[in-house]
Amino acid sequence: MIITHYSVAELAERFALEFRGDGARIIDGVGTLAGAGPTQLSFLSNSKYTAQLATTHAGVVVLSADTADSCPTAALIARDPYVAYARIAALFERLPAAPPGIHPTAVVAPSARVSASASIGPGCVIEDGAVVEDGAILGPHCIIGPECTVGAQSRLVARVTLVIRVTLGKRVLAHPGAVIGSDGFGLAFDRDHWVKLPQLGGVRIGDDCEIGANTTIDRGALDDTVLEEDVRLDNQIQIAHNVYIGAHTAMAGCAAVAGSAKIGRYCMIGGNAGVLGHLEVADRVTITAKSLVTHSIREAGEYSSGVPLQENRQWRRNAARFKHLDEYARRLSALEKDKNDD
Amino acid sequence: MIITHYSVAELAERFALEFRGDGARIIDGVGTLAGAGPTQLSFLSNSKYTAQLATTHAGVVVLSADTADSCPTAALIARDPYVAYARIAALFERLPAAPPGIHPTAVVAPSARVSASASIGPGCVIEDGAVVEDGAILGPHCIIGPECTVGAQSRLVARVTLVIRVTLGKRVLAHPGAVIGSDGFGLAFDRDHWVKLPQLGGVRIGDDCEIGANTTIDRGALDDTVLEEDVRLDNQIQIAHNVYIGAHTAMAGCAAVAGSAKIGRYCMIGGNAGVLGHLEVADRVTITAKSLVTHSIREAGEYSSGVPLQENRQWRRNAARFKHLDEYARRLSALEKDKNDD
Amino acid sequence: MIITHYSVAELAERFALEFRGDGARIIDGVGTLAGAGPTQLSFLSNSKYTAQLATTHAGVVVLSADTADSCPTAALIARDPYVAYARIAALFERLPAAPPGIHPTAVVAPSARVSASASIGPGCVIEDGAVVEDGAILGPHCIIGPECTVGAQSRLVARVTLVIRVTLGKRVLAHPGAVIGSDGFGLAFDRDHWVKLPQLGGVRIGDDCEIGANTTIDRGALDDTVLEEDVRLDNQIQIAHNVYIGAHTAMAGCAAVAGSAKIGRYCMIGGNAGVLGHLEVADRVTITAKSLVTHSIREAGEYSSGVPLQENRQWRRNAARFKHLDEYARRLSALEKDKNDD
Repeated sequence: MIITHYSVAELAERFALEFRGDGARIIDGVGTLAGAGPTQLSFLSNSKYTAQLATTHAGVVVLSADTADSCPTAALIARDPYVAYARIAALFERLPAAPPGIHPTAVVAPSARVSASASIGPGCVIEDGAVVEDGAILGPHCIIGPECTVGAQSRLVARVTLVIRVTLGKRVLAHPGAVIGSDGFGLAFDRDHWVKLPQLGGVRIGDDCEIGANTTIDRGALDDTVLEEDVRLDNQIQIAHNVYIGAHTAMAGCAAVAGSAKIGRYCMIGGNAGVLGHLEVADRVTITAKSLVTHSIREAGEYSSGVPLQENRQWRRNAARFKHLDEYARRLSALEKDKNDD
Repeated sequence: MIITHYSVAELAERFALEFRGDGARIIDGVGTLAGAGPTQLSFLSNSKYTAQLATTHAGVVVLSADTADSCPTAALIARDPYVAYARIAALFERLPAAPPGIHPTAVVAPSARVSASASIGPGCVIEDGAVVEDGAILGPHCIIGPECTVGAQSRLVARVTLVIRVTLGKRVLAHPGAVIGSDGFGLAFDRDHWVKLPQLGGVRIGDDCEIGANTTIDRGALDDTVLEEDVRLDNQIQIAHNVYIGAHTAMAGCAAVAGSAKIGRYCMIGGNAGVLGHLEVADRVTITAKSLVTHSIREAGEYSSGVPLQENRQWRRNAARFKHLDEYARRLSALEKDKNDD
Repeated sequence: MIITHYSVAELAERFALEFRGDGARIIDGVGTLAGAGPTQLSFLSNSKYTAQLATTHAGVVVLSADTADSCPTAALIARDPYVAYARIAALFERLPAAPPGIHPTAVVAPSARVSASASIGPGCVIEDGAVVEDGAILGPHCIIGPECTVGAQSRLVARVTLVIRVTLGKRVLAHPGAVIGSDGFGLAFDRDHWVKLPQLGGVRIGDDCEIGANTTIDRGALDDTVLEEDVRLDNQIQIAHNVYIGAHTAMAGCAAVAGSAKIGRYCMIGGNAGVLGHLEVADRVTITAKSLVTHSIREAGEYSSGVPLQENRQWRRNAARFKHLDEYARRLSALEKDKNDD
């Protein structure tokens, strides 16, 4: 096993950071302020953890200039310590080996085109007309359906399914169980039963997107479902057909967007939040967890729905009153009117 | 590649529709009113899009009699243009080839019975006593567990798992990642730990049902979990053990039904809506998105819960007040009483 | 096929229960009070079903001492009939055969260590440095990533993915589609785009845990995500990175816990309930379905949020008023002040 290691001075140079303290100190990993040892790097970006700085045993700490003086060990000074830490920590990630080539148990259609520098894992199935570009990595059991493309340097960790007419950009990262390009949920009601609308579109995923475990993204009915670049989806998110998501938008776990909704750029959608179909959400909108977007949002800002958690007996009393809120409002107005009539 | 094409007159005859304009025009695909070209068919069923009719470049448009006069191109006149479009569009769907036979990488137990006309894709596993009927299509990596049956002409797109004692009717369509027949969540609490209830029932899925991507349907504890015919489930739906869903009910993404609930026929359950366990929901009930059904519903109609989305600061003020709603109602009554006592 | 059968007296002895009636009666299965036949065992633990006791055709009924006199057939008397039934019913569960050994279609890395008594199903992939301990059963298509361990007697039903650095304890049961050890959702925002935080921790799952179908559990950013022993997770649950869940806690379907939250022991989290990140929930807390935990909970008890379901038109009127709740509260106070000033 290869141990990756760098001196503090090397890290400072590589990431264009100022350092203080012992530049020769060797760092071979990362850890929390509380848990890191003398050959590990840690970081301080949240003032909640400032108290832990004094007692850290980390070899070096990434922090901002205003906390550097309190650092009992070597320091790397960054404008944004969290971002700097993210970049440095990537050096110490040990990804599973993914040698170029096609595993003998993979099944590749003759008409598929797989780059010689791509790595195709055990049990993968690559169907007619699919394309896997340079340096792409497919872990075990990925299925690349007809007319799908996996862009260069993309990584499908394991058991990712691209159903049909799905195009992934470059450096897309998709986690196990993700299903991209499944049928949109399109039904027409014919007197007493449902008739299925064929889903003839595809899905286009931009460069640098991330798709979480067991997340589902349906293909469009006629036009495509689209994620622009650098969209970040957590686990178990549901994106319906013909949704359009602007660049750099991030969604937390279990969020869902209904058909043909259009989400702006730089939005943050909280966990288990929902957006109804055909709505538009402006750029730089934040939706808090479990909120339901029931109308289009035209202005950047933070939006919420829901009611606060309470001890169950109290909650029951309040919730029962909610059923009469309209009546209370009328009674309140009536009282005010009476008073004014006095 | 085979291009499917029909003249407008052929489509009219095949679907028993009246046509106007050039019956000889050749149609080889479908598109939106805004996007379709001169060899494509489009449709108008939502009055929101009527304005697009005047400028469409589609070769023919499916629409209702009352909008036919405004159609600048050939027209196919339908009582329900959306349903007619759905049926016509199916002609132009290009499904992946699925030749009869068992892929050499599939693993089929000697006691399993697979029709010679079924298509079993790469990596499928068909276990003891399983049955795959005529014309069924199993895409890559499907797992058909013991005592499971896949009905005739059913299609399991890819990576569908039937765990044990699952029966799919005819023409069932199941999307990638669906898990049918997993253990119901049955636990008995024994002083200081959980004891698992074995889940000894199965799952019965009726003809023409559709099961979305990553949807899960648990098998029953003793009796079966049941979906009657033509039930349509979107992605990431959770159906617990011993749930019973009536025919023609449709559920949108991320809905969930807890154990032993009984849902009627022709219901519409919105996205991320929930139904608590052991409840009954009558026929023709609509539940709006994200609502929670907390009591049985005896009457057809539309039902909702939740509070509206607001800008976060306003919402916070209102949400904080919700915690005192019962108190406000009492104070309101007291004021009214005082007034009446005056 | 082997039919398992026991006499009533044998069951009484095996489970240390008192019996009444015909101890020689042979039992070969279980059923509901309404459905069980004369060679089947049933149980009565919920008083809702007491009326069914008089007419049951079951061969024997597990019930409590106070209902035994009303039992028309043989009876097994238990302090907790539901727990006793759970243990007895396990005798009649027919699990698929799982012979020790590695299926020829499985792919096992040379550096992996698989016990000779483990059963590795078709298409499984066991990667570098993974360990599968004695008597563990991996159904079809499981993926055991690098540095993962499957503890003794654990069962991965089918298509379970352990991504990397995941340790399962003994007797863990994981259902199809579960993904354990996927990347936590860690992002740092660098001016105009996202930078991914490498997820360097793992997941530790205690003995006797159960992980539902399509449930996802992310690995930690630095430290591990942890489930203590006997944690029971239903289907489609999302556990984010660095969550810690205390022993014997159970969560119903579609619940979600955000990053670094700490849930106590013996908690019950209802279906589709959520817990925000970094919160703490005390031991023995119950959260009702679809509630959102927005602050730490220090006291055992039951907690809820949400508003009740109503017929849509009524609900709309009340929901619209919610947007003005703060204003109403102020107007109410003003009226009271006026009255007091009179």
